[in-house]
Amino acid sequence: MFFQNSRRNFIKTAAVGTLASLSIPQIVAAASASSKTRKIKLEKDDVILFQGDSITDAGRDKATLTANTLKALGTGYAFLTTADLLNKNPDKNLSIYNRGISGNKVYQLADRWDVDCLSLKPNVMSIMIGVNDFWHTLTNGYTGTVEVYKNDYIKLLDRTKAALPDIKLIILEPYFVNGIRPEEAKWHPTFDSYQQVAREIAEKYQATLIPLQSMFDEAVKQAPPKYWTPDGVHPSMAGASLISHAWSDVVKS
Amino acid sequence: MFFQNSRRNFIKTAAVGTLASLSIPQIVAAASASSKTRKIKLEKDDVILFQGDSITDAGRDKATLTANTLKALGTGYAFLTTADLLNKNPDKNLSIYNRGISGNKVYQLADRWDVDCLSLKPNVMSIMIGVNDFWHTLTNGYTGTVEVYKNDYIKLLDRTKAALPDIKLIILEPYFVNGIRPEEAKWHPTFDSYQQVAREIAEKYQATLIPLQSMFDEAVKQAPPKYWTPDGVHPSMAGASLISHAWSDVVKS
Repeated sequence: MFFQNSRRNFIKTAAVGTLASLSIPQIVAAASASSKTRKIKLEKDDVILFQGDSITDAGRDKATLTANTLKALGTGYAFLTTADLLNKNPDKNLSIYNRGISGNKVYQLADRWDVDCLSLKPNVMSIMIGVNDFWHTLTNGYTGTVEVYKNDYIKLLDRTKAALPDIKLIILEPYFVNGIRPEEAKWHPTFDSYQQVAREIAEKYQATLIPLQSMFDEAVKQAPPKYWTPDGVHPSMAGASLISHAWSDVVKS
Repeated sequence: MFFQNSRRNFIKTAAVGTLASLSIPQIVAAASASSKTRKIKLEKDDVILFQGDSITDAGRDKATLTANTLKALGTGYAFLTTADLLNKNPDKNLSIYNRGISGNKVYQLADRWDVDCLSLKPNVMSIMIGVNDFWHTLTNGYTGTVEVYKNDYIKLLDRTKAALPDIKLIILEPYFVNGIRPEEAKWHPTFDSYQQVAREIAEKYQATLIPLQSMFDEAVKQAPPKYWTPDGVHPSMAGASLISHAWSDVVKS
């Protein structure tokens, strides 16, 4: 039911008795509460993988492949989350990788999946993918549809689960922040259907969903849209921190 | 009294009834509790400045001088803290700067203070300085003593308070983690006297002290020293996150 993801449901989980705007900690708590049946418990020697597009990539050095390495993590939510996880779980010997690549759509993840996911044998995989699957239909003639996105995503996760049956999945909902981009009207309602697919896939695979669209929709009541994402897609430092706090909050230490 | 900074006092503030090792959140809480009378309240339009040496610098782009700018913040505790502050205080229009420079001792801060502190008119200044004031006496023939450190530090803060009487100060205790450097024995007890000076200066200026030595002393019970700082001085991601959490915890949002 929470995958309906309506504002009323989102707020209900925040345990506030009002439809007034939420503080940032309330937004994070609401996101976490809506995933409460799927909290992730980290275990000793866990390997954690961040996968996705430019939002995950965030300028990482792609020549550096070792775990827990600063320049290999970029300067976005994956780095912020890694620093927090390593700090709070010193006894767990975690190995954390970022393998996001700017511009990626689902089929491009699939092209490099053996090397950039399966061979790393992650116990926990976090994935944020989908904005380019739609965006590139506007910008560079990509002809994939929402059905292609859905089928590619399901194939990717089926393949992942076949190789790594016990993997714990965290799916970050792709988001788009209104009030910034001139072509905004072209994003709706088509991109919304991509988001719906991501939520359904999280349900299908019993993944932990981080409802980023609801979170950013609430956050823009606290500061203008550009405060959270200068271009409507890529997060600012504040936006990356918002994502990171939601991520940390669904992981039990 | 809490500037005595003994482990017993540090732990007492964590409100745990045992001398067993503390979890990371307990360590952060103890650091914050020991500073509880000096919590910093952020106000709208506050300007926040991080000052210090390489630990603060953390690879920032020194050609970029604007507030709230990713590459101007480096990839250390100042960046982690800035992302958290911007996320949690979207209504406050904060302007946050990092002006740490690798290798700096107090007199080198003084040399650039008009440009790199006073002209920015910070409402809140965080300063971590002192490790090089001692370390460079071992490594490159620097002849400053602990008295020079103390006098230089007092002059710097007198000058700061004269120009900015309402400035709120956060002093980060310089720290050194044992069990890593071969010349460790040369650090004690001399460096300890520098730390004592930093604590006394925090008291003198009614600054918020972040007791980093106590925090790292506790953290190394959870993971080996190198987990927190590869070289005994510069923090790892986990160490930077530990510092950042302590910093965020003394700031009321």
